[in-house]
Amino acid sequence: MIDAALDLYRDTFPGERLNIADLGCSSGPNAVLAISQIVDAVDEKRHQLGHDHIEFQCFLNDLPWNDFNAVFKALPEFCEKVEEEKGRDHSMCFIVGVPGSFYGRLFPKRSLHLIISSLSEGVHLNRGNLWISKTSPPCVFNSYLEQFQKDFSVFLMSRSEEIVIGGRMVLTLMGRKSKSPSDEAFGCTWELMARILMDMASEGLIEAEKIDSFNFPFYTPSLDELVELIKREGTFTINRLEFLQMGSRDYDIDHGRKGHDWVKVTRAALEPMLESHFGRDIMDDFFIRIEESFNESISPRRNAEVNPVLVSLVRKG
Amino acid sequence: MIDAALDLYRDTFPGERLNIADLGCSSGPNAVLAISQIVDAVDEKRHQLGHDHIEFQCFLNDLPWNDFNAVFKALPEFCEKVEEEKGRDHSMCFIVGVPGSFYGRLFPKRSLHLIISSLSEGVHLNRGNLWISKTSPPCVFNSYLEQFQKDFSVFLMSRSEEIVIGGRMVLTLMGRKSKSPSDEAFGCTWELMARILMDMASEGLIEAEKIDSFNFPFYTPSLDELVELIKREGTFTINRLEFLQMGSRDYDIDHGRKGHDWVKVTRAALEPMLESHFGRDIMDDFFIRIEESFNESISPRRNAEVNPVLVSLVRKG
Repeated sequence: MIDAALDLYRDTFPGERLNIADLGCSSGPNAVLAISQIVDAVDEKRHQLGHDHIEFQCFLNDLPWNDFNAVFKALPEFCEKVEEEKGRDHSMCFIVGVPGSFYGRLFPKRSLHLIISSLSEGVHLNRGNLWISKTSPPCVFNSYLEQFQKDFSVFLMSRSEEIVIGGRMVLTLMGRKSKSPSDEAFGCTWELMARILMDMASEGLIEAEKIDSFNFPFYTPSLDELVELIKREGTFTINRLEFLQMGSRDYDIDHGRKGHDWVKVTRAALEPMLESHFGRDIMDDFFIRIEESFNESISPRRNAEVNPVLVSLVRKG
Repeated sequence: MIDAALDLYRDTFPGERLNIADLGCSSGPNAVLAISQIVDAVDEKRHQLGHDHIEFQCFLNDLPWNDFNAVFKALPEFCEKVEEEKGRDHSMCFIVGVPGSFYGRLFPKRSLHLIISSLSEGVHLNRGNLWISKTSPPCVFNSYLEQFQKDFSVFLMSRSEEIVIGGRMVLTLMGRKSKSPSDEAFGCTWELMARILMDMASEGLIEAEKIDSFNFPFYTPSLDELVELIKREGTFTINRLEFLQMGSRDYDIDHGRKGHDWVKVTRAALEPMLESHFGRDIMDDFFIRIEESFNESISPRRNAEVNPVLVSLVRKG
């Protein structure tokens, strides 16, 4: 992510402005984290090279019912802190909120230089309760795959219009290492989650009906499936497409903390969806249980089958 | 406002995009009204002339504690309605929220084509309780004037950087017809408001302490004072600067309703400030009383002394 931003700065210099969008920023304390790390890194490079100030316009996107008020109210304090730390030599950064689904157009044509997104929530299925388990028949996997293909293609086409020629897009999403979308690849986490939700229901912490009505809209593509969809859309060159290693720079930046383990990544990826269905109160408890059970019950081999993927693209001319 | 937008469209055609900002949009049902009327008018003109679609990027600005969530949540329904009414031939319009004070930079350099703002809330004084009454000494008026000069100049300088060469800015604000900022010019409304607030306190509808702690940060400049400040800043040409007449196009559009009278304008101008201090519940009651007393007690001559002013500017090259 940072590398893409620095490449972009190098390629577009001398440009007066960088327009950056974070799609799916959410509303927690980390809503501006990824974008502010990018701004800091580019501005540091600018300073090192002795270039003039540039201006950043940063677009924070999420669905219209995201708590943008919380994000906006925290901005004055955030900006003061940046000014304290960096002094007045920092380039100006203008932050705005963009309500809307990223499965469609959000910005005017050729108006963005860099797009980042953690497509953690994957596809948004609206077809009732599809709960993938070891006993799910293959048609369920196919239905998830088709929806993913459709949504990811719409995502790519929309961004293709919005980004400038030579602009960069960096996505992180959960991908699977196995070639076929078998129960094996899905099994470990989903099974564990279902078990813990059931445990919590039996303890009265969750209503059992909520589990029945929970639709888990999540498809983890393989790298081959991603390559095929990107090539089919046709306007992006693949710069990097690979599984992220624990401790890698992009991996740390995407989640904003050091010392990640798989459970923390899973939490970052899945919490928004779980929280909106089951409520914020049980989230800590739920993920502590996931972590405990995960360490006990899942072998390293299975553990490794669903992992974060970095997709770094350049808009063709 | 509409005229400025149509002039701008004529001057910039063929341009692919118009970036419009509404500064101080607030969060009520009318938050997107002014901007959507401009978009509609320009798009209708484009359609009449047989031009290709353009794209609008609309920036809704208010302070960080404005209820942007309410504005954003209403957008999907608003967009559906537009699509129903206009069909698919409508140009695309991308709406974003910009938290921050317009007495400072909010946008990158040369990034806006049209700026509109109802500077109703005037200057933001932070100097304790200045309540202008007939007994206020001249120094109070001077203190308001100085603050207004400072704030309006910062406003102009910030916008001057943000707007493209040839870009338009249309402001409405309350101005006074008399040359000197005497008690006479302020007197009628402020006195009336104070009397009604006191009445409501005596009926137990408002806490008396709230009246004591209410700071009314409002200065109504004369046209000469505005001209002087605009000339001193130096980067804008004055296209129009005049008192609005009841029933004029800009006047109707600015407040989104027909059949205005002075009290309704006053309400549009002052309600946000009053509501944030005294609460929403008493607003209807308060303005009904204002209207009743206004008709009874204020002569047409005095009535006309504070009126909405239209300021239409063009950024020099």
